[in-house]
Amino acid sequence: MAILTMSGYLDARPRVGYFYTGKTNAHILSEKVKSITVDHYKSRPVVVNEASSVYEAITTMFLEDVGTLFVVDKLATLSGVVSRKDLLRASLGQHSLETIPVGVIMTRMPNVTFCEESDFIIDIAKKLITKQIDGLPIVKKVPHGSGYEVTGRITKTNITSLLVDLANNETI
Amino acid sequence: MAILTMSGYLDARPRVGYFYTGKTNAHILSEKVKSITVDHYKSRPVVVNEASSVYEAITTMFLEDVGTLFVVDKLATLSGVVSRKDLLRASLGQHSLETIPVGVIMTRMPNVTFCEESDFIIDIAKKLITKQIDGLPIVKKVPHGSGYEVTGRITKTNITSLLVDLANNETI
Repeated sequence: MAILTMSGYLDARPRVGYFYTGKTNAHILSEKVKSITVDHYKSRPVVVNEASSVYEAITTMFLEDVGTLFVVDKLATLSGVVSRKDLLRASLGQHSLETIPVGVIMTRMPNVTFCEESDFIIDIAKKLITKQIDGLPIVKKVPHGSGYEVTGRITKTNITSLLVDLANNETI
Repeated sequence: MAILTMSGYLDARPRVGYFYTGKTNAHILSEKVKSITVDHYKSRPVVVNEASSVYEAITTMFLEDVGTLFVVDKLATLSGVVSRKDLLRASLGQHSLETIPVGVIMTRMPNVTFCEESDFIIDIAKKLITKQIDGLPIVKKVPHGSGYEVTGRITKTNITSLLVDLANNETI
């Protein structure tokens, strides 16, 4: 019975023996999924400067092979996010991509959705769906300032990897 | 013990009583995840004709708000796939987007990764990661021909929804 006990289905009570905890498979499954934090499934962030041109941003996106870029200001704190969709929209415009700064077309703070390393990945998954975005920055508050530095990236690709690991029975 | 039996941990043997099946949480979890098929989490496909211009394809992508378009030939069978990334690359070129047919820039059959409704979603999740794509078409063989008709679309967004449902303890 030791394995069953550890698995959370049965609990031991002194002098009473084992009793059924009332948890079903679905409960234990959802508890396991809910306990995983962002730092277990993050990717490295790819960052461009606010003054970079849209053309430079597109080039960076292809070179780094990511779908979302994070835009930082002169203090290297998060000022915005730009997606493949934003860049595609901009490329349809009449203006030269070399002369428009990425800061003009990005989603700007405080309208950026972000998270921290200790957040639960399942809450991020919900945000990615409800806000219809592909990925978001993982940030840390700057020690003596008001901004956030970008420490990572979490995307639907990371969520997909998590599901594959769950199915592969990997220890998470 | 009825609930435990149904949950897969204990099996009943006539005259012998219950015995432990040897399955752990992780096993049952992975079995559950592995048993879900594509048709439970598909989206509707968005299709353009091979002769459409790149400009038309980009417009369709924005109007329908999808990240992947499926391209069909005159017989309405799958001839290729075009992603947001393909369209962004094309928009950087020197040529006019109104004059290049989408068939020129798409990934063409037989190089397209596709699946069928009865495939397991976990196998699709693995393909999305290893092939580094955002989504793929769900197809059905044309009755008396050699091609495939497109019946659906499965993307990393669908996979993310599946994970949210697992955590929400939904019946899948």
